[in-house]
Amino acid sequence: MLTRHQTAQLLVSFDRVLILCHRNPDGDTLGSGFALCRAFLNQGKKARVFCNDPIPEKFAYMVPEQQEDFVPLHIISVDVADPALLGPQTEQLIAPFSPVALSIDHHPTHKQFAQELYLEADSASCCEIVRELLREMGWEIDTGIANCLYTGLSTDTGCFKFSNTSPRTHRIAAEMIEMGADHTRINKVMFDTVTFNELELEQLALEKLWMSDDQKIAVLTITTDMLRKTGVSEAQLDRITALTRKISGVEVGITIKQRGEQNYKVSVRTAETMSASRICEQFGGGGHARAAGCQFDLRDPVIIREKLVEAVYKTAEEERCAAQ
Amino acid sequence: MLTRHQTAQLLVSFDRVLILCHRNPDGDTLGSGFALCRAFLNQGKKARVFCNDPIPEKFAYMVPEQQEDFVPLHIISVDVADPALLGPQTEQLIAPFSPVALSIDHHPTHKQFAQELYLEADSASCCEIVRELLREMGWEIDTGIANCLYTGLSTDTGCFKFSNTSPRTHRIAAEMIEMGADHTRINKVMFDTVTFNELELEQLALEKLWMSDDQKIAVLTITTDMLRKTGVSEAQLDRITALTRKISGVEVGITIKQRGEQNYKVSVRTAETMSASRICEQFGGGGHARAAGCQFDLRDPVIIREKLVEAVYKTAEEERCAAQ
Repeated sequence: MLTRHQTAQLLVSFDRVLILCHRNPDGDTLGSGFALCRAFLNQGKKARVFCNDPIPEKFAYMVPEQQEDFVPLHIISVDVADPALLGPQTEQLIAPFSPVALSIDHHPTHKQFAQELYLEADSASCCEIVRELLREMGWEIDTGIANCLYTGLSTDTGCFKFSNTSPRTHRIAAEMIEMGADHTRINKVMFDTVTFNELELEQLALEKLWMSDDQKIAVLTITTDMLRKTGVSEAQLDRITALTRKISGVEVGITIKQRGEQNYKVSVRTAETMSASRICEQFGGGGHARAAGCQFDLRDPVIIREKLVEAVYKTAEEERCAAQ
Repeated sequence: MLTRHQTAQLLVSFDRVLILCHRNPDGDTLGSGFALCRAFLNQGKKARVFCNDPIPEKFAYMVPEQQEDFVPLHIISVDVADPALLGPQTEQLIAPFSPVALSIDHHPTHKQFAQELYLEADSASCCEIVRELLREMGWEIDTGIANCLYTGLSTDTGCFKFSNTSPRTHRIAAEMIEMGADHTRINKVMFDTVTFNELELEQLALEKLWMSDDQKIAVLTITTDMLRKTGVSEAQLDRITALTRKISGVEVGITIKQRGEQNYKVSVRTAETMSASRICEQFGGGGHARAAGCQFDLRDPVIIREKLVEAVYKTAEEERCAAQ
C-alpha cells in the first residue's frame, strides 16, 4: 500500500485521467470522483468521471460543465471496495485500456484490484482522504470542489450524526464551508426532503408495523403492491429502512421488501447491542455490525418474519453467553 | 456590552454562582448552563443551575452529581433572550437577591435585562460562546463539560444541518469529540429517536394531510382528540411540525394544533423563498423568517386553514411585487 505522500506524487504525475465510481452511486463516491476530476481540470489536465449507473438528479451540481471525451492514460477508482462494484458497463469501458492504476478507498473490507492502493480504513468518508491528498499535492480547492467534498463528508456520516464522524471530519467540513460549499442547500436536499409518495408508503407500511411483545423488535413489510400503489421506487426506500430502528426502545429494526412473487430482500438495523450481520449470516446474507441484509425465496412474508425474529433471539442468547 | 475578555475576567471573579436557563429548556440553554456550572465546580467554587421547568429526561446526563444549595452571590443567565423567558418560579427565586449580573446570549433579538451583557448574535449556539469564554479564562474542559457543550452545538444546528452552522461550530465540535464528548449517543437520543406514539400520531395526522392544488402548501391538523388517542404530549410535536416543510416541492408547511375547543396554535415553516413571520403577523403572531407562529380563537380548523392559505398567497404576491 502506498503512503499519502507517494499517492500524491503519483496523482501529480497522472494525465488523461478516467475516474471510476461504484455502481448505485452515493454522495461519497461521486463527491470524491468529481472533486478529483475538477482538481485535474484546474491543472489543465484532461479528466472525466464514469459510473455504471445514472447519476441521481440530486447530485447533478457536482458534474463539471464540460466533460470531454478522450482516450484515458491513467484510471483511478474512488470509494470502490470491490471490483464487482464497478458494474458491467464500467468493466466493458476500461477493458481495452490498462488496468486501474490507483484505488483510493476507506472501506476496511477493500479487496485490492488496482495496481496501487491508498486506503485509510478509519476515515469516515473517501472525500476526507481526497481532501488530505489535495493538501499534500498543494492543489487549490475552489467552490466546486468544496461542494463535492462537503457532500461526501455529510452523506457518509448522516450529517455528522454517526459514530464514524471524527474530529477530522468536522475540521474538513469547516474548511469546505469557508471555501464556499453551499452546505445549507446540500443538507436540505440530502436529509430534509421526502416526497409525498414516500410519505404515503410510510403510511401504508406503518399500518402493518409488527412489534414484538417486549417492543424490542420492529418489523415493517413493504409489498410490491404498496410500491405500485404509491409509485415509490426501490432506490427511495432508505428513509423507511432507517425508520424502524429509530423507534424508542427498539433494538432491532427489520424491513422486509418484496421484489418478486417469491422473493424478499431483508434489511436489518440494530442498536448498540446486537450484531446485524450475525443475524443475516444465518440466512446466507451479511454486512456490518449495525446494518446488514439477506434474501428469502419464499412466498409468505409472515414466515420470513418469524424466521428472522427467531434468529434475533438466538443471536441475543449467543451474545449473552459469549459475554459471560 | 462587554468584550469577550471583559466577560471572561468577570466570570473568573464570580463565586457562589446561580446560573439561569430559559423555560421550556432545550439542549443549548442547558448545555451552556451545565457547562459553566461544571467549570465553576472544577475551580472549587460553588455553582448551580436553575430552570423554571423540569429538565427533560433526555438531558439528565448533563446534571452534575451533587448540586449543593447556597445563597447566591452572582447570578448569570445563559441563552435567555428576554426576561419573560425566565418564568415565574425563576423570578420568585431570584427576587430576594441582587439582579442578574451577567447575561450570555446569541439571540439577535436579545432584550437587555441583566447588569452586563455578552452577546454574539452571529453564533449558531450559546454553547459556542461559552466554549470561547472558557478558552479566554484558561479553564480546562473535561468530558462532562464536553458533553454539555457538544449538545448545544448539535441541537441548535439540527446536527450541523441548518444554515446557522459555521466553520467555528464544526471546529468546536471537533474539539469536543477529542475531549471525550459521547457524540454518537447524544445524536442518537436527540435526532434518531421517535416514540411509537409519535409514529401513531403521524399516521393519524397524515391521513388528513391537506395539499394546495399547486402542491406548494401542506397543512397538517392535530386535534386534542388525536393527542388523547395516542398519548402524545404537546412537547413532542417538534418532529411532526418539521415534517410538512420536508415534503418535496412544498414551500410552506403549516401545522394547526388544537389546544382547546375554540383555540388553535399554528406553526408555519417556509422554504427559502417566503417569510413565515410575515404570514403569521397578519394574525397577531410572529417569529423568524423560516419559522413562525400564531394563534386562533376559532372552533373550525378548516376556516383557520382557509385564512392561512389566503395569507400565504397574499404574502407571496406582496413579495413578488417588492422584488420587482
